[in-house]
Amino acid sequence: MNMVQKSKDAQIFSKEEELQRERQRVTSVGITSYEYDSQSGHFLFTTAGQLYRCHEENDSAVPELVPHSVTGAPLCPTFSPISSDIIAFVRNKDLWIVSMKSGEEHQLTEQHSNFTSDIVIDSRSAGVPSFIIQEEFDRHIGYWWQPHQTVPGKYCILVEMTDEKNVDIIRTLDPSDICSECECHRYPRSGRPNAVQSVALVEFELDEMHQISNLATKYLNFDLKSVFPWMEYIVRCGWLPDSASVWLQLLDRNQQRLQVVRISLSCFNSDVEIAHSHGHRIPGIQLLKEETSDVWINVTDILSFLTETSIGSEDNFCCSFVWASEATGYRHLQKISVGDFCLPCDGNGNVETPRSRQESWLTSGEWEVDDSSVWVDEARSLVFFQGTRDSPLEQHLYVASLVPGSHIECLTAIGHNHSVTMSEDCCRFVTLHSSLSDFPAIDVVQIDAPVGGTLPTVACCKNIHTHKLPEELGYWKQPPESFSFTTTDGCLLYGLMFKPERINAGEKYPVIQYVYGGPHAQLVTNVFPTARFALLNLLTKLGYVCIAIDGRGSARRGLQFEGHIKYRMGTVEFRDQIEGLQYASTKYDFMDMRRVGLLGWSYGGYMALIGMAQHHDVFQVAVAGAPVTHWETYDTGYTERYMGTPQQNPEGYKAGSVLQMVKMFPNEYNRLLIVHGLIDENVLFRHTSALVDALNRSLKPYTLQVYPNERHGIRKNTAHYWATILSFLEKNLKYRYSTASSS
Amino acid sequence: MNMVQKSKDAQIFSKEEELQRERQRVTSVGITSYEYDSQSGHFLFTTAGQLYRCHEENDSAVPELVPHSVTGAPLCPTFSPISSDIIAFVRNKDLWIVSMKSGEEHQLTEQHSNFTSDIVIDSRSAGVPSFIIQEEFDRHIGYWWQPHQTVPGKYCILVEMTDEKNVDIIRTLDPSDICSECECHRYPRSGRPNAVQSVALVEFELDEMHQISNLATKYLNFDLKSVFPWMEYIVRCGWLPDSASVWLQLLDRNQQRLQVVRISLSCFNSDVEIAHSHGHRIPGIQLLKEETSDVWINVTDILSFLTETSIGSEDNFCCSFVWASEATGYRHLQKISVGDFCLPCDGNGNVETPRSRQESWLTSGEWEVDDSSVWVDEARSLVFFQGTRDSPLEQHLYVASLVPGSHIECLTAIGHNHSVTMSEDCCRFVTLHSSLSDFPAIDVVQIDAPVGGTLPTVACCKNIHTHKLPEELGYWKQPPESFSFTTTDGCLLYGLMFKPERINAGEKYPVIQYVYGGPHAQLVTNVFPTARFALLNLLTKLGYVCIAIDGRGSARRGLQFEGHIKYRMGTVEFRDQIEGLQYASTKYDFMDMRRVGLLGWSYGGYMALIGMAQHHDVFQVAVAGAPVTHWETYDTGYTERYMGTPQQNPEGYKAGSVLQMVKMFPNEYNRLLIVHGLIDENVLFRHTSALVDALNRSLKPYTLQVYPNERHGIRKNTAHYWATILSFLEKNLKYRYSTASSS
Repeated sequence: MNMVQKSKDAQIFSKEEELQRERQRVTSVGITSYEYDSQSGHFLFTTAGQLYRCHEENDSAVPELVPHSVTGAPLCPTFSPISSDIIAFVRNKDLWIVSMKSGEEHQLTEQHSNFTSDIVIDSRSAGVPSFIIQEEFDRHIGYWWQPHQTVPGKYCILVEMTDEKNVDIIRTLDPSDICSECECHRYPRSGRPNAVQSVALVEFELDEMHQISNLATKYLNFDLKSVFPWMEYIVRCGWLPDSASVWLQLLDRNQQRLQVVRISLSCFNSDVEIAHSHGHRIPGIQLLKEETSDVWINVTDILSFLTETSIGSEDNFCCSFVWASEATGYRHLQKISVGDFCLPCDGNGNVETPRSRQESWLTSGEWEVDDSSVWVDEARSLVFFQGTRDSPLEQHLYVASLVPGSHIECLTAIGHNHSVTMSEDCCRFVTLHSSLSDFPAIDVVQIDAPVGGTLPTVACCKNIHTHKLPEELGYWKQPPESFSFTTTDGCLLYGLMFKPERINAGEKYPVIQYVYGGPHAQLVTNVFPTARFALLNLLTKLGYVCIAIDGRGSARRGLQFEGHIKYRMGTVEFRDQIEGLQYASTKYDFMDMRRVGLLGWSYGGYMALIGMAQHHDVFQVAVAGAPVTHWETYDTGYTERYMGTPQQNPEGYKAGSVLQMVKMFPNEYNRLLIVHGLIDENVLFRHTSALVDALNRSLKPYTLQVYPNERHGIRKNTAHYWATILSFLEKNLKYRYSTASSS
Repeated sequence: MNMVQKSKDAQIFSKEEELQRERQRVTSVGITSYEYDSQSGHFLFTTAGQLYRCHEENDSAVPELVPHSVTGAPLCPTFSPISSDIIAFVRNKDLWIVSMKSGEEHQLTEQHSNFTSDIVIDSRSAGVPSFIIQEEFDRHIGYWWQPHQTVPGKYCILVEMTDEKNVDIIRTLDPSDICSECECHRYPRSGRPNAVQSVALVEFELDEMHQISNLATKYLNFDLKSVFPWMEYIVRCGWLPDSASVWLQLLDRNQQRLQVVRISLSCFNSDVEIAHSHGHRIPGIQLLKEETSDVWINVTDILSFLTETSIGSEDNFCCSFVWASEATGYRHLQKISVGDFCLPCDGNGNVETPRSRQESWLTSGEWEVDDSSVWVDEARSLVFFQGTRDSPLEQHLYVASLVPGSHIECLTAIGHNHSVTMSEDCCRFVTLHSSLSDFPAIDVVQIDAPVGGTLPTVACCKNIHTHKLPEELGYWKQPPESFSFTTTDGCLLYGLMFKPERINAGEKYPVIQYVYGGPHAQLVTNVFPTARFALLNLLTKLGYVCIAIDGRGSARRGLQFEGHIKYRMGTVEFRDQIEGLQYASTKYDFMDMRRVGLLGWSYGGYMALIGMAQHHDVFQVAVAGAPVTHWETYDTGYTERYMGTPQQNPEGYKAGSVLQMVKMFPNEYNRLLIVHGLIDENVLFRHTSALVDALNRSLKPYTLQVYPNERHGIRKNTAHYWATILSFLEKNLKYRYSTASSS
C-alpha cells in the first residue's frame, strides 16, 4: 500500500470515528479491533466473535461478514498492505489469513497445534503477545506485514512466537458458577520465569484468485539468547522501509538496557535447526541504538525510519531514524544516523556495530516529549510530536525541524489539553481538546505552509471543522480546579480540588483524598473531568471535598521525578500526599481535617491501605479497591521495572508489603473498606485474601465487599459498588463527628 | 484374638482414655487414630505423620515408633487380631502392613499405583472409603481383618476398592498462599456420579520371623452391579463369625432400599476376569435382610451376628443376628434368624433368599434405639443398647432379653443423659453423664447378676469408680433450661432457654435464636452445655436471651418426625422455629421481641438466610455461617437422601434455593452477616459467593466476613470470628432501638 497516495480526509475523520467507537464501547455495544485502511476506505471490526468489513463512504451498507469456516473468534485483524481483500488475524493463538475474494481461510502458523483452551498442555502461540507484553509493555499485536512486496504475489509476515511453558499457572475460580472448573492463566510473578519470545517469517504466495501456495515458515538461523544473553523481552518489532530487514527492540530483565537491532531477512531460513552463534560469524545483525539507564527504560512507540535509509551491501548499510531517549532525564527526540557496520573487536557476540554514528537532539529542556505518536514530514524536514513544554498539566502539538539546532513551535492553543492525530501528509490534524472547565470539543485543523520556508506556527493553523461532544456528559456544576504547592524538600507538585456543590460560609466539609500514587499515571491535568472522576462528582454533590495529588513517581515530569519510587514502592509516596493535603487545607478553609478519607483503586488501593496503616491519625477511613498488598504476587514486567526482583531487593519488598504493616492498622471498626473482584486476573484476589487473613489473625477489623463475577474493574455491579462506597463514607466519615458530638 | 480372654479393666478404663484423648485433641496436641488391643494392652496413635505403639500399663514408657521406610503418613492403623505385633494401615491410598518384630513394611494393594497426590490422574484407592462414605455414612475405615485364621500363619483382609474417576473435581484455592496451586477434591454434587466401590480379599502368609510370602489379591468372581443393579453404595462391611464369609450392606441411590448380603469366600478368586452373572448361577451370595422405606433408610452400625450362626453346606447355612430397623417408624431391635437358602424362582438375580426366616422385635414403642453401639451377651441371652425410651432429651443404657416378648430395663439414672461403653463380658460399663445443670462426670459401674435369672435392673448396678471432669469447663453461672410446647398442628417440640446472666425485673433483653433445623442433629438434650454452646454462654453474659428449638426434621424423634423435611428442605422448617419463638416469648416475659436475631452455621446458616429472606418482620438480624445456599452444590449422599436428585425433584431444589429468594431480603444495611471459610471443602465457598453475586445484582446489602485459611469450622480464627459476631450483634441488634429511640 502506497502510504502517500492515501485519501487525506479519510484519515482526518478517523479520529471522530474512533471517538464514536469509544462511545460505543462504553455503552457496551461490544465492538472492538477497529482497523482502518485509508487507501481503500475499508475498516474492520469484530463483534460477538465475528469479523466484519465495512466501507467508510457507505454508511447505510450492511457490514460484510468476513467468511469463516473454523471455530474460534478472530482477533487482531489487519489488512494486507497490498489489498484490503486480504485480512490477517489471530485465531486460537495462531495466525490466519482470509481472502474476501476467494472466501477461503488459511492457517499460517501451527504453534498452538490443538484447538484447545488448555493452556497447561498447549503453552505456545504465534502472532499474539504474552500477558506481560500486552499488559506492561502496551503491545497488543504480534505480527507485522512486510510493507512492500519484493516479488509480486509473494507475501511475508514477521510473526512473534511465544512459549509460556515455564510460566507459573494461576487459577481463579468463578465461585458463583456452581459447576465451574478453574480459570487458568499463565501469570509470571516477580522473580519467576517469563514467557520465551522469538520471531519468525511466514511467507506465502497468492495467485489472482487468491489461491494460496508455497506457504513456508522461516526461523532465525541463530538463537537470540546466545547472541543477546542479557535479553529478556522483545518489546517492539517492525520492518525497515526497504522491506529487506526487520528491527527488534530487546530489553533486559531489569529494564535498564535496551537495544534496537536490525536483522536481515537473510538471517531467516526454513531449516529449523538453529546454529549457535559461538565461534562463527552470523552476518546481518546490526546494532542501531543502545539505551542504558540507572533508573529504568520506558519503552515507547517512537521510532521512525527515514527514507534516506539506504542499503548497499551488508557492510555499507546505513540508516537514519527519529528516536526518543530519556538519557538527559527527560524524554526528547533524537535524529540518529548510523552506518559502516562491522563486528566489534571486543568480541561482543555477532552483533555488528556502526563505525559511523551521528546522534543529534531535536528537542531538549526540562520537559518531555509524550509517549504517543510522532509524525515525520521528510519532504519539509519536520517532525510533529506532543509534549509538556508549556505545562506538565497539558498536552500540546509541537513541530520541530529535522535539522538539529532549530527551535520548536507549539501548534495548539495554550489553556487547553490537546490529544492530536495528524494526517499522513502532515497538512491537517484532529485535536480532541478540553480544559478542567471547558467541555471537550474536536477540531479539524489545517496547517498552511508557512512563509519563507520556516517552521509552521500556530498562526498557520486554521480550524476548518468543529464538533462538540454530546451535552449529556456535562454533569459538573462546578468543575475541579488545579493548584500547585512546593514540598518541604523543594519539589513543585500539582493537585486537583473538587469543591462541594454547595458551600455555606464558615462550614467545614468532609474530605476525600483520591489517591493513585503509582508510576505511569497522571491524575492532575487540565482535561475536562469525565468518567474518570464520576465518583468524585457524586461525592461533591453529597457535600464532600475531594482532592487528588500527583506526587513524585507520577508520569510526565521526567525520569528523576518518576524514579523517586525506584526500589522503594510503598515507602515514599505518602509524604507528598500528606503535604498536599495539608497545603490544600490552608488554601481551602472549608476542608474539615477531622474527617478525611482515602479512596483508591489498584495502586491507589495499595496507597489507601498504607495510609490507613501508617497515617490513621490523618485519615479517619480508607476505601481500598483491588489493592496490591505485597509485590511478590504482582507481575514481572511491572514490578521488576520499579522494584527489581524479590531476590535482588528483599528489603524493598518487605518494606513495601502491607502484610508487614498489619499490626499498625487501627483497632476501630468501620475505618477500612476493602473491595475486590474475585476473578481479577490482574491484581489477583489473593492480594486481598492474604491481607484479610493477616488482619483476621491480628484481630483487626475491616469491611470486605467482594464481587464474585468481576475482574480488575467493576463493570457489572457499578451501582452496588458505588452504593457500597457512598454508604460507607456517609455513615463512617460524614456523620462520624456529628454523631459523636450529639452523644 | 480371643475376644473373651481380654483384660476386663483395660476396656473399662479405655473410655477415660478416650476422653483424655478427646481433651488432647481439643487442645491441639494433634494425636489421632487411637486403636486399642485389650488382649495385649497395646494401643496405637499417630501424631505428626508418624505411627506409635504404646502399652497401657507403662505410662512413663517412651512410645515405640512403628518402623517406616516409605514416605506418606500412615492412616487408620489397626492391630491384627492374631498379634499386636502386626499392624495394618493405609498409606498413599493403599493398604500396608508393618511387623514390629521384623521392622519391615509391605504394601498389600496397588490401587493408587503412583506415589502421587494428583487425584486427577490417580483416582483409585484401597482400604480408605470415599468422601461420601466417610462424610455422609460415617464409615471411616475401608478394610477388615479376618477374625480367625483358618490356616495358621495365613492372614486375610477384606478390602474396599474405590474408583473416583467419574466423580467431579472441585478446586479450592488457598488464596492467602501466594504460590499455591489449587487444592483438588473429588466432590460428587447431587445428581452427579459417585465413586464406584467394590471389595476384594488380600491374603498373605507370615512366618515366625514375620517374613511375608504368598501375597495375593482375590476379586469377586461377579460384577456387583450386575447382581445388584439397583445398588449405589456399599455402606457397611464385615466378617461373619465363622471367618468363612463376609457381609455387605448395599444401599440404592435414593437410600430407600438396603440389603444385607452374605458372600462366601468362595466367591473371591485371583482370576481378575469377572464372570457376568447373567444366565448362570453364582453360588454363595445370600440375602440376609432387606429394608425398604418410603422416607429414607438411616444406616447404622447395629448388626451383631450370634454364635448360634452355623454353617453346614452352602445350602443349609443358617444364621442369627441382632438388627435395628425403622420399619415401625421408630428404630427398634430385631432378632433375625434366616436359613435354608435357595435361588428365588422369580429370577431375582443370583441372590439366594431364605426359605426359613424368623424376625422378632426385641424392643418396640414410640421411642427409638439410638444409632450407637449394641452389646450382646449370648451367655445370658441379653442385649444392651442405648435409647430414648424415658425421654427424647436423654440417652440411657437399657437391657433387653434376646428372647422376644420380654420387657426392657433401664440401667442408668433418669434425670441425666448417659453415654455408655460396655465391657466385652457385659459385666461393667463406663458412663459419661451429665444434665443441663449438673457438670459431667464419669462413672464405672458394675452390673451384678440379678436374682432369679431375670433381667438385670438399675438395682443391680453398683458405682465402683467416679471421675469428675476438670472444673475449668464450668463456666455457666446459670445453665440453660429446656421447655416444651405443642405446635398449632399438634406436634410436641422441645426448646432450650439460655437466660441472660443478670435479669432486672420488667426489663426486656435482645433475643438470639440459635438455629440448625436440619436432619441428623439434636440441639435440645439434657446434657451439660459445653463447647457446643460456648458462644451462647458469652451472649448470655452480654445480656442476650438465647433460645434453640428442635423442630420437625431433627433427630431421635422417629422417622416420620425426621421425614417431615423429605423433598422440601428450606420450605417447612421455619414454622416450628417461629412457633417455638412465640411460645417462649409468652413463657419468658424478659424477651424483647422487637430485637430478635438468628444465628446458625452450616444448615443453620441456610436457615438463618431463609429467616432473613422470609421472616425479616420477626428477625431483625441474621448471622449465617458457612451456609448452604442451593442444594445442587451439596453432596450426593446427604442431599439425595433428603431431596432426591435435582432431576427427580427440580421444584424442591428451586423452592429450597436461597438464590431464588434474593429479592425477598431486606434493603436495610447491617441486618445480614455472612461468614465463610474460603477453603471449606464441605459446604463450598461457592455457596456464599453465588449468594453474594445474586445479592450484589439485586442491590441487597449484607456484611461478609471471610476466613481465607479456614474450612467448614473456624479453628484458627476463633477469637476474630466471635468478636465479629458479637460486634455485629451489639451494634445492630442490642443497640438498634436504644439508638432509634434517642433520635
